[in-house]
Amino acid sequence: MIERTDVAAATAMFEEVKNWGRWGPDDERGALNLITPERVAAAAAGVRGIVVSCGRPLPVIPAVDNPTPAQHMMVIAGDCLDATGVPGLETALDYVGVAFHGMAVSHLDALCHVFHDGLMYNGFPATDVKSIGAMRNSVMTCAADGVVSRGILLDIPRLRGVRWLEPRDTVSPEELDGACADAGIQVEPGDILLVSTGRDERRSEFGPWDPLAVGMAGLAPECARWIREHDIAMIGSDGVSDPLPNNDNGWPIPIHMCCLVAMGVPLLDNLDLSRVATACAAESRWEFLFTVAALQVHGGTGSPINPIAII
Amino acid sequence: MIERTDVAAATAMFEEVKNWGRWGPDDERGALNLITPERVAAAAAGVRGIVVSCGRPLPVIPAVDNPTPAQHMMVIAGDCLDATGVPGLETALDYVGVAFHGMAVSHLDALCHVFHDGLMYNGFPATDVKSIGAMRNSVMTCAADGVVSRGILLDIPRLRGVRWLEPRDTVSPEELDGACADAGIQVEPGDILLVSTGRDERRSEFGPWDPLAVGMAGLAPECARWIREHDIAMIGSDGVSDPLPNNDNGWPIPIHMCCLVAMGVPLLDNLDLSRVATACAAESRWEFLFTVAALQVHGGTGSPINPIAII
Amino acid sequence: MIERTDVAAATAMFEEVKNWGRWGPDDERGALNLITPERVAAAAAGVRGIVVSCGRPLPVIPAVDNPTPAQHMMVIAGDCLDATGVPGLETALDYVGVAFHGMAVSHLDALCHVFHDGLMYNGFPATDVKSIGAMRNSVMTCAADGVVSRGILLDIPRLRGVRWLEPRDTVSPEELDGACADAGIQVEPGDILLVSTGRDERRSEFGPWDPLAVGMAGLAPECARWIREHDIAMIGSDGVSDPLPNNDNGWPIPIHMCCLVAMGVPLLDNLDLSRVATACAAESRWEFLFTVAALQVHGGTGSPINPIAII
Amino acid sequence: MIERTDVAAATAMFEEVKNWGRWGPDDERGALNLITPERVAAAAAGVRGIVVSCGRPLPVIPAVDNPTPAQHMMVIAGDCLDATGVPGLETALDYVGVAFHGMAVSHLDALCHVFHDGLMYNGFPATDVKSIGAMRNSVMTCAADGVVSRGILLDIPRLRGVRWLEPRDTVSPEELDGACADAGIQVEPGDILLVSTGRDERRSEFGPWDPLAVGMAGLAPECARWIREHDIAMIGSDGVSDPLPNNDNGWPIPIHMCCLVAMGVPLLDNLDLSRVATACAAESRWEFLFTVAALQVHGGTGSPINPIAII
Repeated sequence: MIERTDVAAATAMFEEVKNWGRWGPDDERGALNLITPERVAAAAAGVRGIVVSCGRPLPVIPAVDNPTPAQHMMVIAGDCLDATGVPGLETALDYVGVAFHGMAVSHLDALCHVFHDGLMYNGFPATDVKSIGAMRNSVMTCAADGVVSRGILLDIPRLRGVRWLEPRDTVSPEELDGACADAGIQVEPGDILLVSTGRDERRSEFGPWDPLAVGMAGLAPECARWIREHDIAMIGSDGVSDPLPNNDNGWPIPIHMCCLVAMGVPLLDNLDLSRVATACAAESRWEFLFTVAALQVHGGTGSPINPIAII
Repeated sequence: MIERTDVAAATAMFEEVKNWGRWGPDDERGALNLITPERVAAAAAGVRGIVVSCGRPLPVIPAVDNPTPAQHMMVIAGDCLDATGVPGLETALDYVGVAFHGMAVSHLDALCHVFHDGLMYNGFPATDVKSIGAMRNSVMTCAADGVVSRGILLDIPRLRGVRWLEPRDTVSPEELDGACADAGIQVEPGDILLVSTGRDERRSEFGPWDPLAVGMAGLAPECARWIREHDIAMIGSDGVSDPLPNNDNGWPIPIHMCCLVAMGVPLLDNLDLSRVATACAAESRWEFLFTVAALQVHGGTGSPINPIAII
Repeated sequence: MIERTDVAAATAMFEEVKNWGRWGPDDERGALNLITPERVAAAAAGVRGIVVSCGRPLPVIPAVDNPTPAQHMMVIAGDCLDATGVPGLETALDYVGVAFHGMAVSHLDALCHVFHDGLMYNGFPATDVKSIGAMRNSVMTCAADGVVSRGILLDIPRLRGVRWLEPRDTVSPEELDGACADAGIQVEPGDILLVSTGRDERRSEFGPWDPLAVGMAGLAPECARWIREHDIAMIGSDGVSDPLPNNDNGWPIPIHMCCLVAMGVPLLDNLDLSRVATACAAESRWEFLFTVAALQVHGGTGSPINPIAII
Repeated sequence: MIERTDVAAATAMFEEVKNWGRWGPDDERGALNLITPERVAAAAAGVRGIVVSCGRPLPVIPAVDNPTPAQHMMVIAGDCLDATGVPGLETALDYVGVAFHGMAVSHLDALCHVFHDGLMYNGFPATDVKSIGAMRNSVMTCAADGVVSRGILLDIPRLRGVRWLEPRDTVSPEELDGACADAGIQVEPGDILLVSTGRDERRSEFGPWDPLAVGMAGLAPECARWIREHDIAMIGSDGVSDPLPNNDNGWPIPIHMCCLVAMGVPLLDNLDLSRVATACAAESRWEFLFTVAALQVHGGTGSPINPIAII
């Protein structure tokens, strides 16, 4: 087990799990290369037709875990039916805007979101992410066709028999194995892993807390090796996959660093996994067809998302 | 055939196709009620695993068909690796914002987007769409769980043997029948209909044009009756479904008015259907599992989207 | 002395200080009508040439008193010298955006910002402030030509011999008289009154606090009568003029209500008066030419500002 | 006379007018150093009390000269009097946002807005303008205390006896001399020069045009030498000071390059000088106290402004 504070072990693991060059020197898709039509077809074949969102509502209300709220403003509301000047064209319009990274918005982290020693996935330099947008590893690799694969929900609180994991708690690779076994699922290359820590349940009970101060549950660093061994294509969590607060040892977020930078595995942060957990429990089925439809933003570092589980 | 200028016919059709009260006096889901788990499962069963996006890139460049461009700005780019102050936390962040209605952004129109005589779907008043957001018929009805159903692509230029429909041209109900027959598809309640007019092909050839001045191809008004008869759940187009320019007779956009207001059928505007058309042609298969993952915006009138066809 | 909780007294005072109709039934300029070229010329005549800003930096960092931070993002930074495509056109561009009302941004409150019983200044209905902008009493009345008049700084902590006023403390009309006497100033119609409570000094010492929870110093309600008697044209403060937290008795912010609604006196909130106080003390002169250059926003409810004192 | 296309002459002039090091190696204020309290007091002494804005309304409507419109959206309008939840707190709020550089917004160009050969004023590198904001030469040098000095209006169309200058036309240094002589003004160090080309008059007559395609009138390159010889502190124009379209010879905007980069003279673009011209003509007085209150944006490249002439 790698302690979060163990710099040497983190460094070694980072090198060990690296996928740089695995799909060619110009590759920007990373672990998405692991998803095949056969895998998608297989996941679709088992679908029963239950559709559940894994995204949170866009958080427009300031809160201690939402210091830079999303924006939603009407351009024209229902009080101005003659605003268009076209007879009979009665319409309401609005605007949405969001700096989506952070700890409140359900979002996808593209491979250009995080660097290690000035480099991003496949060895491209951080300076390729310019003020006008990322030239490499942008969200377009995830958004150009969307990401669809088998999703697997690992409900850790359920496995432990608790309602939620406490802040700063970590999930071990052994627990990932245990959850898979409990669900009767054999992980396969190209799968998308969703790890619930019960964050939403805890937030409903106690209200919001500051994840950077109080902490948030996440994956132990060593889970990166597990992710690599199983050739997972994408990881999602109701937190930010890494436990918080950040380390101050130069490896602040080892899961992000190993997944995004070393392996080329995009991340999904701040999902709401409570509803899909309920639906999965009702069906006694923890796998589904999972779709992630990031917005197509040229040069973007990610996207707000509303992933859908089709159980 | 209803002429676009025939006010009496439009009024009569509006009343005829109305679904108000059909799913109860408080219903806000409209034709989405037609989608059942059985229909989703049936659509999934045929999936071959080919994943194609039907969304356009977020249009951040001003153009004659994009007068209020979307915003994409970096909050931190790769030139500021020490910006976070946390050792080793090297990150790039960005912001996206968009007033998505219009003629450039791939977006979903929620049922609160358009009114007729001060009313929206199911008879709720326009004044329920307030400056702080819609109290009724908001995008949450589409976004709370995403929308998933069978999608059907009707490629009208292919049917006609042309590369695109000219601006102001209209597609008749008979052509919709013809396209379905040609594709060997029997439309069923809850299906999502995607109608290609070849807009992107034409734009690639000639560059952008002003749809309000030059016009844009769309569905003849009478198609609304066809949509009602077939109990379509949602309509998408590479234009805005209605032909442009707007009528000035009090029925500026009869398809919008009949779909959104009378029937409760959400619309998808400004899709890029060129790639899915290519993929469908390659597979000789014009139906697929179709997913629309609108952002969950409380009170929103719609959402930018990146719909995914899983063929 | 009117207690903040005395509803009857507040109601009576509101009626007593009303300027509705004073400058005609269609007037939207309110107390700005009191400013004359003669007053401006007189204020300019005494200028010694010392220029001091009374605005705060745009607050882009989230804080407990800044829950919806202003936005500042580069569109092009210095890392993309060839971004324009024009040879030699090396440029950096940025974007600023702000929902300026609140307790962090230096801003002007236009007369359409606050209503009482559904009415705003001069009796116009709140419904004239539409989702597309205010049809009446917008910031244009302040911004079309800017506001320039004599400014008077009343430094209450200095008068009391303290560094700052504690949260929830109030300044009485008698103190306003005392501060004027102490400064050797005879207030005249059309003057702009700036009242310092030492907020910035306190914030520098203790860091930010939540004004709605902890409170903030301001003017006692009865100061509204004083403002009316002296025919002040505009009031500014380092807080929001009203003491906080809001009353919950239907008169949440009596100074705002009496100034904006009854008298037509625009307000300046969240100024930084510490530097002008230092400069005034150095010059032993508490009056100056004061300029407020609100952005010209058609239909706006106010504007971020950077007022300038020319001592 | 330097032709716009004469690269050697432009290069030589750039070197000749340079103020780098003139106010020390760390100076970021440039020509603002030329403004003294004495000059401000002298300008104030002549004030008659007529206040005129030189800013345009914030341009929120898309137009051919406004491809990225400013944003103005209500957060709460007058249709939601109970939105705050505080009894009696009836309020309307809004948001303004703008990428202000361009050809529609009245704005200030800070010294970090333009580079030449990768350097900005006083030799600081362009890379000091980072994606998180400018570390050097930001708008704070203009905004920290506002800019106040004597303003001089040179109304070139009036001098020529025309209503406006045609697009691409240039104003020569000799005309600047002539306009000063005509106005009976002796230019002095620290003055702010406002040059009207009649753009707003032309726009009122013909509607908007695309300045990059059709062109816009401005100062001949050699005016830069005139500006340096007269030690002007700031230049403003109803265009962008440089004539358009841009040169494609590596000196796209010589006035911008010489003023911002070589001399450290901030620029004011897209002013509305029509009203101040009318007022000056009525007073037969072409000088006034001029105030520029840029927003205090840390790291900003400029600011939207509403400058005020106090005649």
